[in-house]
Amino acid sequence: MSDTVAPELSTSTDDADGPAAAADRSDHAGRADRAGTSGYVQPTVDVPVLTRILDGRYAEVRDLVRTNLAEYAGVLEDAETMTGPEFRERVLEIVQEMAKTGQTGFGFPEEYGGGGDVGASIAAFETLAMGDLSVLVKVGVQFGLFGGAVLQLGTKRHHDAHLSDIIHGRTLGCFAMTESGHGSNVQALATTATYDVGTDEFVVRTPHDAARKDYIGNAATHGELAVVFAQLHIGGESQGVHAFLVPIRVRDDAGDLVPAPGVRIEDCGHKMGLNGVDNGRLWFDDVRIPRENLLNRFADVSAAGVYSSEIESPGRRFFTTIGTLVQGRVSVGGGAINASKVAMVLAVRYAERRRQFEASSKESEQLLLDYGMHQRRLLPLLASTYAMHFAQADVTRQLHEVFSTDGGDDKDNGLARRSLESAAAGMKAAGTWHATRTIQECREACGGAGYLAASRFAALKADTDVFTTFEGDNHVLFQLVAKGLLTDYAGDFQDADQFEMVRLIAGITLDELVKRTRAHQLFERVRDLLPGGDDWDSEAGLLDPAYQLAMLRYREEQIISSAARRLKRGVDDGENPGAVFSRVQDHVIAAARAHVDRVVLEAFIAAVDQVPEGDEKVALNLLVDLHALSTIEGDRAWFLEHGRMTAARSKAITREVGDLCRKLRPLAGDLVDAFGVPPEILRAPDLLGPVVVAAEA
Amino acid sequence: MSDTVAPELSTSTDDADGPAAAADRSDHAGRADRAGTSGYVQPTVDVPVLTRILDGRYAEVRDLVRTNLAEYAGVLEDAETMTGPEFRERVLEIVQEMAKTGQTGFGFPEEYGGGGDVGASIAAFETLAMGDLSVLVKVGVQFGLFGGAVLQLGTKRHHDAHLSDIIHGRTLGCFAMTESGHGSNVQALATTATYDVGTDEFVVRTPHDAARKDYIGNAATHGELAVVFAQLHIGGESQGVHAFLVPIRVRDDAGDLVPAPGVRIEDCGHKMGLNGVDNGRLWFDDVRIPRENLLNRFADVSAAGVYSSEIESPGRRFFTTIGTLVQGRVSVGGGAINASKVAMVLAVRYAERRRQFEASSKESEQLLLDYGMHQRRLLPLLASTYAMHFAQADVTRQLHEVFSTDGGDDKDNGLARRSLESAAAGMKAAGTWHATRTIQECREACGGAGYLAASRFAALKADTDVFTTFEGDNHVLFQLVAKGLLTDYAGDFQDADQFEMVRLIAGITLDELVKRTRAHQLFERVRDLLPGGDDWDSEAGLLDPAYQLAMLRYREEQIISSAARRLKRGVDDGENPGAVFSRVQDHVIAAARAHVDRVVLEAFIAAVDQVPEGDEKVALNLLVDLHALSTIEGDRAWFLEHGRMTAARSKAITREVGDLCRKLRPLAGDLVDAFGVPPEILRAPDLLGPVVVAAEA
Repeated sequence: MSDTVAPELSTSTDDADGPAAAADRSDHAGRADRAGTSGYVQPTVDVPVLTRILDGRYAEVRDLVRTNLAEYAGVLEDAETMTGPEFRERVLEIVQEMAKTGQTGFGFPEEYGGGGDVGASIAAFETLAMGDLSVLVKVGVQFGLFGGAVLQLGTKRHHDAHLSDIIHGRTLGCFAMTESGHGSNVQALATTATYDVGTDEFVVRTPHDAARKDYIGNAATHGELAVVFAQLHIGGESQGVHAFLVPIRVRDDAGDLVPAPGVRIEDCGHKMGLNGVDNGRLWFDDVRIPRENLLNRFADVSAAGVYSSEIESPGRRFFTTIGTLVQGRVSVGGGAINASKVAMVLAVRYAERRRQFEASSKESEQLLLDYGMHQRRLLPLLASTYAMHFAQADVTRQLHEVFSTDGGDDKDNGLARRSLESAAAGMKAAGTWHATRTIQECREACGGAGYLAASRFAALKADTDVFTTFEGDNHVLFQLVAKGLLTDYAGDFQDADQFEMVRLIAGITLDELVKRTRAHQLFERVRDLLPGGDDWDSEAGLLDPAYQLAMLRYREEQIISSAARRLKRGVDDGENPGAVFSRVQDHVIAAARAHVDRVVLEAFIAAVDQVPEGDEKVALNLLVDLHALSTIEGDRAWFLEHGRMTAARSKAITREVGDLCRKLRPLAGDLVDAFGVPPEILRAPDLLGPVVVAAEA
Repeated sequence: MSDTVAPELSTSTDDADGPAAAADRSDHAGRADRAGTSGYVQPTVDVPVLTRILDGRYAEVRDLVRTNLAEYAGVLEDAETMTGPEFRERVLEIVQEMAKTGQTGFGFPEEYGGGGDVGASIAAFETLAMGDLSVLVKVGVQFGLFGGAVLQLGTKRHHDAHLSDIIHGRTLGCFAMTESGHGSNVQALATTATYDVGTDEFVVRTPHDAARKDYIGNAATHGELAVVFAQLHIGGESQGVHAFLVPIRVRDDAGDLVPAPGVRIEDCGHKMGLNGVDNGRLWFDDVRIPRENLLNRFADVSAAGVYSSEIESPGRRFFTTIGTLVQGRVSVGGGAINASKVAMVLAVRYAERRRQFEASSKESEQLLLDYGMHQRRLLPLLASTYAMHFAQADVTRQLHEVFSTDGGDDKDNGLARRSLESAAAGMKAAGTWHATRTIQECREACGGAGYLAASRFAALKADTDVFTTFEGDNHVLFQLVAKGLLTDYAGDFQDADQFEMVRLIAGITLDELVKRTRAHQLFERVRDLLPGGDDWDSEAGLLDPAYQLAMLRYREEQIISSAARRLKRGVDDGENPGAVFSRVQDHVIAAARAHVDRVVLEAFIAAVDQVPEGDEKVALNLLVDLHALSTIEGDRAWFLEHGRMTAARSKAITREVGDLCRKLRPLAGDLVDAFGVPPEILRAPDLLGPVVVAAEA
């Protein structure tokens, strides 16, 4: 098959491409220089070395999780063979056993038995996503959402009372935020908690059916305690959304858990996936809880019913509260990226074994991965999986820094926090969409064998599907990211309310707008990078990372500023801001997408720059190029429309993507092995086993 | 909300778009003329009238199926609540009961109790796809694949012996073609049937494990008889793939079905979806069957072991055999399109009820469908679902004509057959990919509620997923389509072997190539249509269907001829044809995609032209425009690269797509209702019920 991967294959893809083909060849030279060789030499990859590079700072944590994954590999079959209730119990059991190894407690303070390392907790969580995803989500609910809320929103009295039991999986709990009527718009939720000064209690109430808490993990069966988000009412006045600890189950005389008085619980029933997680619905019928059950880190209520908070603005108070929960989004994004690694291993390894149709020779059928189309389908996704991995590592680093400085509610820390929240929102959306797309393409690339449950694709598809819409709907998250870009984080960052966004933009002059938007700062960087002016895009080498980044930065800058101008102009013309927003919304979301694309590429390039010289670095740079150029290729219409790319250049990029696929083809198997997915959890005998190596004709 | 759909909203999407905006407005005028009004007037749709238009010639057949779907609506819940084995039995029961209504027998001759109407059988099948898809696929296996093979490949002795029992669901059977080692490459399958002249029998053998028959419906539990495809060996000579009737189960003394002697059967086990279908694997250990069990319509073996066939060329014989099975592909494409209608109903109806975030007013939250992004996500898919529906109806018409002329093996009928086979392959790939994409987008647009099994999305996603890779992998099918285009059906059409394709192309001169490829004929049509030469694309109105079609025809012509030239040049340069093919493969597949896009639009426009004047026609023309322009928009990079579109024009198309979405928004509910999905099978109380109408703030 070596003829299909030879480096000299730079045949033009179109008859009219003479000049571009020449440009293409000079790019090769530029690239070769960067890789430190004269002329391209096919690298070979040392898999353990590359795994070490990918694992980074938390290699030990990841290996602990890999060991646990292998030990509990049977859960992947249990998911198919057990009844729903049995599987829920099995998942709980595994989660509790894993808790004993310390794997799930890294994010909690050491004094309560935790690991005291936020970054490690993300590394552990995302590695766990290579296995059964009900286990992952149950861990996320118990230790991330529920435990995280008690840790971040509670104070010492709550920590002392609950953290040790939570960390060790003895007290199971819920994170009861979402309501049937309000998912992403948390500020508008309708559950109330009214302070009764006479009894020193809060009275928690579900005012109508649309205010029931919905899709709540641990609610249907296992949860004893819930962190309930409700509008705090005191003396007839509303203080906005606060979090309360509400016991939802108590032990009856027989020692069984039954719903607490006034709490109604319903099972959400069978779901597309994640059926090892007991999602349920909760209604509160004037449930009374002690005043101390208010999680009072940011606000408190005195016995006399006086409300106090260090944060004066109710909006800021709300978004500070919500902001502490950012870890959930970082976790989901990382989980999705790691789930897509499993799909990549299966599809690439299968394509290296499976033959179909005679092509290069009449004697034997050709391997799938030697087909150009198959390379095109899989290898850019593989490159982007690497890109996402390193970008996610960078978000984890930001999270770790913000949450390790012990200045959680310090105002000076604000910009770093808002920047983190934006990065987490963007990465969660990008990572989860990447997973949906990658798992789907990999499944299709495995044909009928990929449809069998034994191949893991069934569970991967079904379980990850909800990732794009939970922990913040992806479109709403991109809207948040765009809001930060458009307003330079003026106003309350986490507020995805369009009214507010349009109002902020309308309130400033056009000049000011250009100065304020993040775009302007970015444009300065583009100019600094490429002082040659407008010619850079036709002269630079395609494989020059400065060119690749400059293209993505330019696009981001343009889309942000044109979206801002359209919003402002609509309002200046006297239109209803809602109608203006609706019309410009896809443009606003395109701005976020362009931003995230740039951030991911920047992180990928920066990470690879840190890698010591060697073949692994050469291979990683091929992945950088493939990821960057296929990203540009994917939106080449935009660059053509905006005069930043000639038609010949655009075709040259397409050709280069094909060339890079052929260069990466012989490395593909090693590149997926480097993800370090434990073989015990790959299953898929029909994809990886000997039967798929078809008889040669 | 009327302000978001007002026709005058043609605000420019970009600051640099002055001229395009002007062109845009003139398009509006052109469009208005076509709709027979001066100035745009919002149409209203009479749902039953539109349903009648969609149902077409087979309205009665479709209504029969709708009645059955409503009657057996409970199966949708059974799929979740029953165990695997129970559900398989339940699905069988329903299939057998439906058979009694005549619904599943339309494709069989009346003399055996069938309906004698091939078109009706497709209409019935595709309507059935609105319900549980295990029922659909079980019907497809029993009546389409198994019954169809006995009908099409057998002769009177087989028909007399089996058809009545098959049609009435008394004899259940398998279509045993696919092997573990060979899915799409049927010609290379390895099972053998060797004639034993001494006993007047064939001996059927599975020579090695990769030759086991795999993923065979009805094999794991219910099938008694199988149509087995095997290499026919006589006197040491191979005659290629033929089909044989092999009993795979017999009744034991207790009356239970057990595997026949020499037949080994294994259950494929749990699958991603379609778990009501008992897929299995079959091994044949020298199983002896009478000589008469050869399905001998196209070839026969005498008692003395002399092979005979009216079709001399072994290749042509094989492809004639396979060609009679084209109905399976037409069925799957139609099924996929109808499954996507269910997803569209749920997502559009939900978006018309569900409010989220304040936007136009601080008083109440905005309906999802009034958000521009939400319209952008759903409405082009709705337009394409309509387009697919009418294109599929056209393929069904072709199928009906070819199979009703009673000239099945007539050579004069050859071109119509090859044209049908190409249309079926293209439509199957396009329809099934459309379904995967549409169901996914609709699920995401329904958030958490769409993740609950009660919403139908779980089953829709899981069950349809395999449609893209069974009955011919979509990429292989597109390759087939491309082969027909590139070689003008020279050689054996159904052969997707790249070697053959490259050989055919390499064997002709470049001049001849241009003449022979379908592209040339197409280009003549483009010229006839638009005699104005190269200026047409900048002067024609965007809403002129001649412009829309000319754009897609031009693209098709260009991609086909440039792919042909690249293939030819590579071989002329002495490269290995397999390497050439691999490099050009994505280009070849792009040619097929461009072709199918054009065929679908042509069929949609032609169908809508037949509709009587009225509001329904106005609405359908809006859908044509949205489908056509979003298709062009989706590949606008290509048009820009090839100088067939200016940047301003490209932006004008994007703007027009947005305008069309706003015009269609008030019609969207009626447009999905017109699909006529029985309300009993929609389920999804959380999407359609009152609880999702969130409390107004």
